[in-house]
Amino acid sequence: MCPAPVLITGAEGFVGAYLIDILKRHGALVYGTFFVREARHLDLLPESHWIFCDLTDRLSVFRLFRDLNPGMIYHLAGISYVPTAEADRPFALETNVKGTLNLLEACAEMGTSPRFVLISSGEVYGKVPEREGPVRETFPLRPANFYAATKAASEAIAHPFSERGDISLTIFRPFNHIGPGQAPTFVVSDFARQIARIALSLGEPIVYVGDIDVYRDFTDVRDIVRGYGMVYEGRVPEDVFNLASGRVVAIREILEKLISFSGKEIDVVVEPKRFRKAEVRRLQVDVGRFTRATGWVPEVPLEETLRNVFDFWVKKLSEEGT
Amino acid sequence: MCPAPVLITGAEGFVGAYLIDILKRHGALVYGTFFVREARHLDLLPESHWIFCDLTDRLSVFRLFRDLNPGMIYHLAGISYVPTAEADRPFALETNVKGTLNLLEACAEMGTSPRFVLISSGEVYGKVPEREGPVRETFPLRPANFYAATKAASEAIAHPFSERGDISLTIFRPFNHIGPGQAPTFVVSDFARQIARIALSLGEPIVYVGDIDVYRDFTDVRDIVRGYGMVYEGRVPEDVFNLASGRVVAIREILEKLISFSGKEIDVVVEPKRFRKAEVRRLQVDVGRFTRATGWVPEVPLEETLRNVFDFWVKKLSEEGT
Repeated sequence: MCPAPVLITGAEGFVGAYLIDILKRHGALVYGTFFVREARHLDLLPESHWIFCDLTDRLSVFRLFRDLNPGMIYHLAGISYVPTAEADRPFALETNVKGTLNLLEACAEMGTSPRFVLISSGEVYGKVPEREGPVRETFPLRPANFYAATKAASEAIAHPFSERGDISLTIFRPFNHIGPGQAPTFVVSDFARQIARIALSLGEPIVYVGDIDVYRDFTDVRDIVRGYGMVYEGRVPEDVFNLASGRVVAIREILEKLISFSGKEIDVVVEPKRFRKAEVRRLQVDVGRFTRATGWVPEVPLEETLRNVFDFWVKKLSEEGT
Repeated sequence: MCPAPVLITGAEGFVGAYLIDILKRHGALVYGTFFVREARHLDLLPESHWIFCDLTDRLSVFRLFRDLNPGMIYHLAGISYVPTAEADRPFALETNVKGTLNLLEACAEMGTSPRFVLISSGEVYGKVPEREGPVRETFPLRPANFYAATKAASEAIAHPFSERGDISLTIFRPFNHIGPGQAPTFVVSDFARQIARIALSLGEPIVYVGDIDVYRDFTDVRDIVRGYGMVYEGRVPEDVFNLASGRVVAIREILEKLISFSGKEIDVVVEPKRFRKAEVRRLQVDVGRFTRATGWVPEVPLEETLRNVFDFWVKKLSEEGT
């Protein structure tokens, strides 16, 4: 147990809400920084535990750390949507890498060697050829898009702080995670939203998709944050860990499952503009290192996750009536 | 042969001078950016081929590329002295990583997919335990200082540009390189300068050293730039390459050799303040990938390099009379 405050950056995001929840259940004293005011789930933390902070503003970050003196930092903040990062790379570099540097230097300045949990991404590996087998943490990082590049760069700049003892570092490389509340810019949430609209008779029975013949590892966000929460529980060593279910599924299969929930006949229209350039067909993940270190295994079945995501959109769209 | 201009960034530096020399001998049309006006070797390029450019200034970099339209870029510029990078990390991030991003985006804007030769560093691997054997390119990057972190981050952000076909990318990870003209902030140049002063009877016969019982791979800068020059010759594929001699030597041995050149009795005083924190005792490098790809092998014997460095300092100090 950790008596010092736990700080979550980017706490207002999709993953932040779930992480706040699990850390509170572990009895943690949770504070969260936010930058997008409207996105906060105000009920999850007392008002005074929501801290507005632009992480690219070095002095604000230093002041925050001097005031709060956190014992553990979960760094979730950053631009996480690939097209946004690609559209303005200098801004993505500033937000994701300079923001991380400011946090690392603020940790160093405290002189207390706090636990720093860097949430990187499975995308840092880039296009791993299928013949090389499931992706392990020792694989070289060859990020294929600029979002992934900023994550690999953030990992790089965290290492020397760990080396100097300024932080105690754990890096997670989560792969696709899904769950209720995720923005419809991500594929599963997008499909579920489209199909929920059809189920509610709010639109034509057509769902628009990109390349559905790719295989990915999808993990329930609640399993992901349960893994993150194990750091607070003192069960995770200083190391780099993949975090994923370890099983791949075709996007086509997810689409069919979501369609089956709707109880409707739905046409699938493939739109080439939705294809991501030169994707890897099948990306399988080896999560053995994290499982061996902590005993973590994914618990939420994919079908349950998909049902929850679908129900989320049905409820949300019903309330909005659009 | 490459008819388009070849641009060297940081051409005014130690390595830049040697690289200009070898590329000119290959018949290249060389342009060099500089930022430290005094450091230029004006005789090496026509005045109009020396281009003042602050690489952190995005618009200047874009304008330069629009004007020059280089077919090949050797990116040497950046803060390369570890304590400088550690002393102001935001500045090092801006100079080394943002500077690289500006170049990459300027390449993308040209739309000609130029060859981009990124000069990274062998330091990106960090402290590789001796039991893991000679460092190969597939080893994980765990930079132990912030200079090395900016190099690993630069590699990370270059990959997506290569992936998109915006550049044709070769990354070099050179290990310690030495030669006449290197600043005395680097260990061999430092020792040679101290001993040359003694040889010239300009100081007490005492040489101050740090931890001399570490083993490193030292390569002559002329061998290093011969490797870089092979990209211009069209002999290097798109890949990541270690560049080193492949043999390790104790710093103590280098010290003794330099002392022998002086013809004097010299006391060696170990100063703990010169120790770098928790260094790896012995860092051996596997250069097989580059040798197999190109046939490159180091040619200048270490003794000759050391003699050249010593003679350089004797000449320089004699001229200065200090």
